[in-house]
Amino acid sequence: MAAAGAPVVVLAGGTGGAKLARGMAAVVGDDLVAVVNTGDDVEMYGARVSPDPDLVTFWLADRIDARGWGLAGDTFQVMDGLRELGVDVWFNLGDRDLAYGIERARRIAEGARLTEAIAELGRALAIPGRVLPMCDEPVSTHVLAHGRTWPFQEFMILSRARGPVDGVDFRGVHAAKPTPEVLDAIARARAIVIGPSNPIVSIGPILAVPGMRDALRASEAPVVAVSPIVAGEVVKGPTAAFLAWAGQPVTAAGVAALYGDVLDGLVADEPVVANPAVPVRVTDVMMRDAAGRERLAREALAFATSLAR
Amino acid sequence: MAAAGAPVVVLAGGTGGAKLARGMAAVVGDDLVAVVNTGDDVEMYGARVSPDPDLVTFWLADRIDARGWGLAGDTFQVMDGLRELGVDVWFNLGDRDLAYGIERARRIAEGARLTEAIAELGRALAIPGRVLPMCDEPVSTHVLAHGRTWPFQEFMILSRARGPVDGVDFRGVHAAKPTPEVLDAIARARAIVIGPSNPIVSIGPILAVPGMRDALRASEAPVVAVSPIVAGEVVKGPTAAFLAWAGQPVTAAGVAALYGDVLDGLVADEPVVANPAVPVRVTDVMMRDAAGRERLAREALAFATSLAR
Repeated sequence: MAAAGAPVVVLAGGTGGAKLARGMAAVVGDDLVAVVNTGDDVEMYGARVSPDPDLVTFWLADRIDARGWGLAGDTFQVMDGLRELGVDVWFNLGDRDLAYGIERARRIAEGARLTEAIAELGRALAIPGRVLPMCDEPVSTHVLAHGRTWPFQEFMILSRARGPVDGVDFRGVHAAKPTPEVLDAIARARAIVIGPSNPIVSIGPILAVPGMRDALRASEAPVVAVSPIVAGEVVKGPTAAFLAWAGQPVTAAGVAALYGDVLDGLVADEPVVANPAVPVRVTDVMMRDAAGRERLAREALAFATSLAR
Repeated sequence: MAAAGAPVVVLAGGTGGAKLARGMAAVVGDDLVAVVNTGDDVEMYGARVSPDPDLVTFWLADRIDARGWGLAGDTFQVMDGLRELGVDVWFNLGDRDLAYGIERARRIAEGARLTEAIAELGRALAIPGRVLPMCDEPVSTHVLAHGRTWPFQEFMILSRARGPVDGVDFRGVHAAKPTPEVLDAIARARAIVIGPSNPIVSIGPILAVPGMRDALRASEAPVVAVSPIVAGEVVKGPTAAFLAWAGQPVTAAGVAALYGDVLDGLVADEPVVANPAVPVRVTDVMMRDAAGRERLAREALAFATSLAR
């Protein structure tokens, strides 16, 4: 087991993972390294929008808006201007949020890696720890549903994430690879926690990057997943429809089955028999507030530490 | 001479031309067709920024801000967001203004002509008349000064438009052509008025579009220029340095010499002997307010009409 001071890696996608990352930052401070899904990224409004990395960044900066996305207190002048032109604004983005995406697009156009552009935002917002994209290459999650293929944001917003889901495709992932920063953090980690995000479309793209599962298995750090299933239900988002497509029940065991042999342990709110048969830590996995986020992060970290090889 | 109802064309670049266009709209309403310089256009912040067409559009919409550019009451949240990231924001753009440029970039990326994108903004802001870019092809004015070549906006803002000017280059202009809309308006015009904008970097790019001077000469409409020189001085901007580079005095005669044989008449605030020897209408060319703009537009139009072939 690596010493304190070594990274604590949290794999994160949507809100659940972001909240756990925030709780973990309260526990380990700058040792936190969030490795975040970029399959939701879109080029829009001249900006490179990275919803999940920004969600985690805003949570870590304590600047997430109460609505659950975007910056607290952000304005929407540009979107209003687009509407004035008759644009059907289905993807809403605040002005500050847009500024960050515009600057990211400019940095990438001039040759920066996504990793660098995301790190620059983290520094500007003075977050604890680091937010790393899972890869620098473009990956674009598409969902097959209702007889057509939807880019992920369109599925979530325009189709209102209605199931049934008939297919999921992480376009571009076969040409992607974990970044050096991701591989280094995983290799040096003292613990790796898979956050309670959608296992298929939030965590799934991270695990689908070629070499990522190998890196997780090869790390000396224990890998534990926090189940996103609370009292038998999904807290937020369309996880159930995706689990159904994947042939898994809406249970912690169903989630564990998707992660497979990268898992060393599972944190869930009810005793389950996971397959693979990993140890389970039963605790409340609902994060109602800052204290709840810190408690769950602390328990997940202690559990992982107890499993250290 | 064409009948009332035929277009009154105003060639415009910066503020002087925009004010005259606004005055002309007060006189002829929807018969106004402003043909506007696009040599100042830039791709920035993911947007296609067209400073002169937008300046004219905002003037026509009565939405120009008191500062002399941009939309009245616009906010600057995105620029503030960029500054938060440490970006050196030397080119300031309001949020609504940015929205218009973002949508324009999107429309052009999907294949629209600049003419169409600019027309859409005019419709959204319900302007009288029409604003036409001089061409659809990209043209980029560059200024040689202080031993280096400056893109126009950088010369204006970063070098504070300091002379002496050692060269002017309208990059891309040789591959440009007047749009069908511009050629049609010029051909059908009852009068053509060159607005009191910088004759070299505001009106100059328009006249440099191959075929533009021929079209102006071929039109049956008289072409009169309103001198931007007021009481022997330039009202606004770096016109003197450009006239010096062009070897012309800071006088209405100097301006007329640059326009050459497209001119049928000159409106100036003092009697001048123009070369070419065109008729001169002496009147106050300062536009202090709406009444002054309308008066000057009315006088220029009456003068042009009196010269009709």
